[in-house]
Amino acid sequence: MHPRSHAEALDAADPLAALRNRFLLPEGLIYLDGNSLGPVTSTVRERVERVLTQEWGTSLVRSWDDHGWWELPLSAGARLAPLLGADPDLVAVTDSISVNLFKILTGAARLRPGRNAMVTDLASFPTDRYLIESVAELLGLHVRAVEVHELLTTFGSDLGVVALSHVDYRTGRLHDLASITADVHDAGGLVVWDLAHSAGVMPIDLEAAGVDFAVGCGYKYLNGGPGAPAFVYMARRHLAHLHQPISGWHGHVAPFAMESVYKPDPGVRRMLAGTPPILSMAAFDAALDAFEGVSLHDARVKSVALCELFIELVDALCDHHGVDVITPRLPEARGSQVSLRHPDAFAIVQALAERGVVGDMRPPDVLRFGMSPMFIRFVDVWDAVHVLADVLETGVWRQPRFSQRGHVT
Amino acid sequence: MHPRSHAEALDAADPLAALRNRFLLPEGLIYLDGNSLGPVTSTVRERVERVLTQEWGTSLVRSWDDHGWWELPLSAGARLAPLLGADPDLVAVTDSISVNLFKILTGAARLRPGRNAMVTDLASFPTDRYLIESVAELLGLHVRAVEVHELLTTFGSDLGVVALSHVDYRTGRLHDLASITADVHDAGGLVVWDLAHSAGVMPIDLEAAGVDFAVGCGYKYLNGGPGAPAFVYMARRHLAHLHQPISGWHGHVAPFAMESVYKPDPGVRRMLAGTPPILSMAAFDAALDAFEGVSLHDARVKSVALCELFIELVDALCDHHGVDVITPRLPEARGSQVSLRHPDAFAIVQALAERGVVGDMRPPDVLRFGMSPMFIRFVDVWDAVHVLADVLETGVWRQPRFSQRGHVT
Repeated sequence: MHPRSHAEALDAADPLAALRNRFLLPEGLIYLDGNSLGPVTSTVRERVERVLTQEWGTSLVRSWDDHGWWELPLSAGARLAPLLGADPDLVAVTDSISVNLFKILTGAARLRPGRNAMVTDLASFPTDRYLIESVAELLGLHVRAVEVHELLTTFGSDLGVVALSHVDYRTGRLHDLASITADVHDAGGLVVWDLAHSAGVMPIDLEAAGVDFAVGCGYKYLNGGPGAPAFVYMARRHLAHLHQPISGWHGHVAPFAMESVYKPDPGVRRMLAGTPPILSMAAFDAALDAFEGVSLHDARVKSVALCELFIELVDALCDHHGVDVITPRLPEARGSQVSLRHPDAFAIVQALAERGVVGDMRPPDVLRFGMSPMFIRFVDVWDAVHVLADVLETGVWRQPRFSQRGHVT
Repeated sequence: MHPRSHAEALDAADPLAALRNRFLLPEGLIYLDGNSLGPVTSTVRERVERVLTQEWGTSLVRSWDDHGWWELPLSAGARLAPLLGADPDLVAVTDSISVNLFKILTGAARLRPGRNAMVTDLASFPTDRYLIESVAELLGLHVRAVEVHELLTTFGSDLGVVALSHVDYRTGRLHDLASITADVHDAGGLVVWDLAHSAGVMPIDLEAAGVDFAVGCGYKYLNGGPGAPAFVYMARRHLAHLHQPISGWHGHVAPFAMESVYKPDPGVRRMLAGTPPILSMAAFDAALDAFEGVSLHDARVKSVALCELFIELVDALCDHHGVDVITPRLPEARGSQVSLRHPDAFAIVQALAERGVVGDMRPPDVLRFGMSPMFIRFVDVWDAVHVLADVLETGVWRQPRFSQRGHVT
């Protein structure tokens, strides 16, 4: 097993090490939960304070024009686009993943009339599953939830829309976006990818893969703030055809004409609905500053190495404590998190937090540790697994206070 | 015509005069556009800065529990409820009006199967109209858009859901919420009220009126910040029955059980969808501090008096310049704005803004002046109309630079 000096050497050689300075991290905390809520950056704080004082505070309603509020869903989308391998005019920042999935699933299903099967991954994040079921019910379609490796065998002539997560939120398994997209297209279907757990930690190339639609969230690896607006991508070939049903005025081609008939904007603006929450939108936009000059290829290399070190140390230190690594060991099959399984995951995560190591858990028994390559150091990984080993060794997590449940950890 | 000392005397006698100190208003600006974007308060600024530094910045993901983020949509709703005459457990703050209308219209239409007519006001705000058309199309229903005074004659046995604005956003006409609600119920229908232009400036009693559903916006007279989340109310009798289609995980009865089947929360939480934008949500919540100890009856009395003075001065000073008052002159038929009609509304509003008087316009020819009784003084009204008269008198608005259009004014 490697000594701590090995981790120190990796940090010394890390080309991304200086990025950590862009974040305002609490002193002494090892934060391995950027896959749930990314930390705040210094430019986000400055930007939100500017919105409060100069924009809203001083220019008031004129800020819609004078400070770019009106364009923010598209200008932030254009800044985000390179991280997704998307053309800048095809991404909008708006609403939540849930709302965006509803818009896209409803619109996309109607692009494939007569194809009545909507397909999703059994392991999808619940909200994705709930939304596809709701849309299917509303449109008189049906849903098949399958294992991703069974996808190919389930495709029939009734295949309409497929909704999948790029990275499984529990296990961290990474799916092959390009090849699955091609398979769905071969079968005559359309695919919607949920990039919540991949955007910002690995290169993605939506255009090259020919993806139809994608959604993703602003508050995880993109560090856009709690409940930051989500993003939505639509392929250029669908722009003129996808009619989303939440036809609010911000998606209208001429919102201030106040016309009585809805005419969707010809571009991705048609994905907007109501007035966007500017404080949260500005925070997300400013969070993208942290990605200036960052190669996502380098970020991916570091993310893989952080996960490797974490798994290696868990194997060496925690294996005999009933902990299983459930994240794929093959780097190509893995997102940017390491998930462990232990029957007392909840109490262990609480005990870790008390010792300054923040991960989270997903029921019933999964511990998750997110590896944000922008701010996590190799020594953080080394220290975190040593704390975990100590918690397991001493059994401190068995104290009743660690099993009191809150909503989110 | 009254001299300025009359306005000064009204201010001196105003029981709400001290509320102005709760707002951070730019020096020297007469801001008559709180009906479009309310100004920031000092507690909003403090609260958002606390979210940035202490909550998100320091407690990070644990803030969902430790700083009440998880409960915010309902705790802010409960604080807002008294301003609406609603039970505190029946209001949620979530998404935008557009998204909330979609949820409610879709859910409500299905509570009246076989009643295929959805009815709305011809003068509705465009987004309300677009949404009802979209929902009708999706569900195979049809829409009748009528004048509100014709509502009674249009009700037939096919009447399902009626969606109306409490106050007409252009003219400022106030509709009789209680009597129209009763009429719709008599006809077997359900009613959804849009309170965007009434919440926070007049007493409303949703419970006494037996209203089925209401939506409204946080960023106008409630001063919740640009694009602040909207609110939604549902009557207790509908709680168990209304199934809204945007079934995101935050509306689930047990979101962290991560179940594969959507089970809506038994309460108003079922109106939530995705993760809420916390910065904007916290700003809205803090904006409600400004209403602590404020009687909406007093606010309404002052709002009526501000509008009276405005109209009186316009009659005296501007009448011969081709300006028409299109807001009803009867206080009971009026919201909290005065709207004027002039063919060059846009340029006049720009010229006013240059002289420190902010109103706005709605195409093609409506000038709007919002009277927020929380921070507008009678001298502001006196000064504003005198500036307007001077602009009209001198014809300064005819200079070409005043007719360059932006998105929002």
